Amino acid sequence: MQIVFLGTGGSWPSPKRNVAAIAVKRGREIILFDCGEGTQRQFMMSSLSFMQVQKIFITHFHGDHFLGLPGLVQSMTLNDRKEPLRIWGPRGIRDLMEVLLRIGYFSPGFDVYVEEMEDGSEVDFPEYTVTSVKMTHNVPSIGFVLQEKDRPGKFNRERAIELGLPEGPLFGRLQRGETVEHDGMTVAPEMVLGERRAGRKIAYSGDTLPSSSFADAATGSDVLIHDATTDASLEEKQNEFGHSSSRQAAQIARDCGARMLFLTHISPRYDDVSTLEKDARDVFENAHVPNDFDEHLVRYKD
Amino acid sequence: MQIVFLGTGGSWPSPKRNVAAIAVKRGREIILFDCGEGTQRQFMMSSLSFMQVQKIFITHFHGDHFLGLPGLVQSMTLNDRKEPLRIWGPRGIRDLMEVLLRIGYFSPGFDVYVEEMEDGSEVDFPEYTVTSVKMTHNVPSIGFVLQEKDRPGKFNRERAIELGLPEGPLFGRLQRGETVEHDGMTVAPEMVLGERRAGRKIAYSGDTLPSSSFADAATGSDVLIHDATTDASLEEKQNEFGHSSSRQAAQIARDCGARMLFLTHISPRYDDVSTLEKDARDVFENAHVPNDFDEHLVRYKD
Repeated sequence: MQIVFLGTGGSWPSPKRNVAAIAVKRGREIILFDCGEGTQRQFMMSSLSFMQVQKIFITHFHGDHFLGLPGLVQSMTLNDRKEPLRIWGPRGIRDLMEVLLRIGYFSPGFDVYVEEMEDGSEVDFPEYTVTSVKMTHNVPSIGFVLQEKDRPGKFNRERAIELGLPEGPLFGRLQRGETVEHDGMTVAPEMVLGERRAGRKIAYSGDTLPSSSFADAATGSDVLIHDATTDASLEEKQNEFGHSSSRQAAQIARDCGARMLFLTHISPRYDDVSTLEKDARDVFENAHVPNDFDEHLVRYKD
Repeated sequence: MQIVFLGTGGSWPSPKRNVAAIAVKRGREIILFDCGEGTQRQFMMSSLSFMQVQKIFITHFHGDHFLGLPGLVQSMTLNDRKEPLRIWGPRGIRDLMEVLLRIGYFSPGFDVYVEEMEDGSEVDFPEYTVTSVKMTHNVPSIGFVLQEKDRPGKFNRERAIELGLPEGPLFGRLQRGETVEHDGMTVAPEMVLGERRAGRKIAYSGDTLPSSSFADAATGSDVLIHDATTDASLEEKQNEFGHSSSRQAAQIARDCGARMLFLTHISPRYDDVSTLEKDARDVFENAHVPNDFDEHLVRYKD
């Protein structure tokens, strides 16, 4: 699972940072969190193809988080996409998309399914879930937690051979968790598999003040991506606008026991982000401000 | 008068070219023609400030020509703009802007005046006019001709001194075309000014098939900016979509007696534009494909 930071800036773009968009590449699909203006072009400048985006999750309806949607869908259509696209967001996303997908002379050339997520609701996919968490911003806003399901344990090849199983397709079926028969013998997967291994977890705050309910939902995240609009010196002012400082983001990372913190939604005032990183690392060591197009491979714990 | 090409690509952006936006800096104001997605960021990467945009003219309602409007107005608001902004476009622009300026949690912090232009209508400003021309695209579309008013002739300083006028404010008044009195003598401006000098003229086609009515309206342009989506080899196919080839753009430049042709709305398929330029120059020598951020100073003829 690869995270590609397509837009790490906040409020409005700067030459260095475009507005919010975070892509998660998982197998052949791309899951996109937020889609600020210019996201389609950020895709074109990255290692990813926007045509592979299957799912989009929008945190809230400030322009720097959603204004890239109509252009993205239009360019998908102009590039002959036929596959459906699914979009989730807070209450109101259906009405908003209804407008965004019909402005000007345009309608999408494929199905776009739009669903509203209540606070705390979960979307269940075969290999992972995405849960929404109510955040604390100056407009209704949700964060997202992507939690992979546990994987089967490691396959013990020697044990399988000891049991008299022939190498071949039976091995694969056992690895996928099926019980198999061979020569009148029944072999259950737990006989040849180690303990189930935990799936990976990514939590993305969107725009928010520090939120203990988000820290709860993000417990044990492999990667926490958090609003860190400014350094600690401007914390009070940013809090008035419903944003966090990098120090506050680090406190959430510490409280939820995250393995790693990415600071995002960086104010366009910063050219040099060393103070943001310093303020965060005073609280939580493994904190980083990614640049646009930076990629991070999320590894399994074991 | 300086033209700054902010977006020279067509249909969708490429890493090299953003979608349509052409800024004309004239004195302290910026006049913007079209405003595709990402135009605010193109401004930030150019020599111009988006806060100086006073007037925007939109050719038609395909996304690559207008989807940058909401983000631009939002960022102007976030940067405390108070000055009004004026926007013109074809019939429907009022309804479209009504939607674009209210999506998400937002309303502009300054007045935005939106006016529809009928085909052939003219907006009259103190120093220039902007005329709309009906174009031939696959949706209703207009082109624009910016025509500066004639300037007073050159001031003949020696002649004024010969007539007995003292150096000082009277000279300025005569240069501005006023009649002045001095020592019982009446001096009319034509006594000390050369012939009136022609204002400069810029014509921008937007998206279109070759149009003889546009060639008429663009007669004698100092700069013609024309749709040239592809080279001549793909002309027939592009014409089906309501676009011109670079050769056809050059024919219009020749027919209207333009001094210079800029080829724009370049298809994202082109990395190398030499065939587009070659096909144009076979017909009209002074033809160029600008890159994003290229600037061109429009000089007076005399």
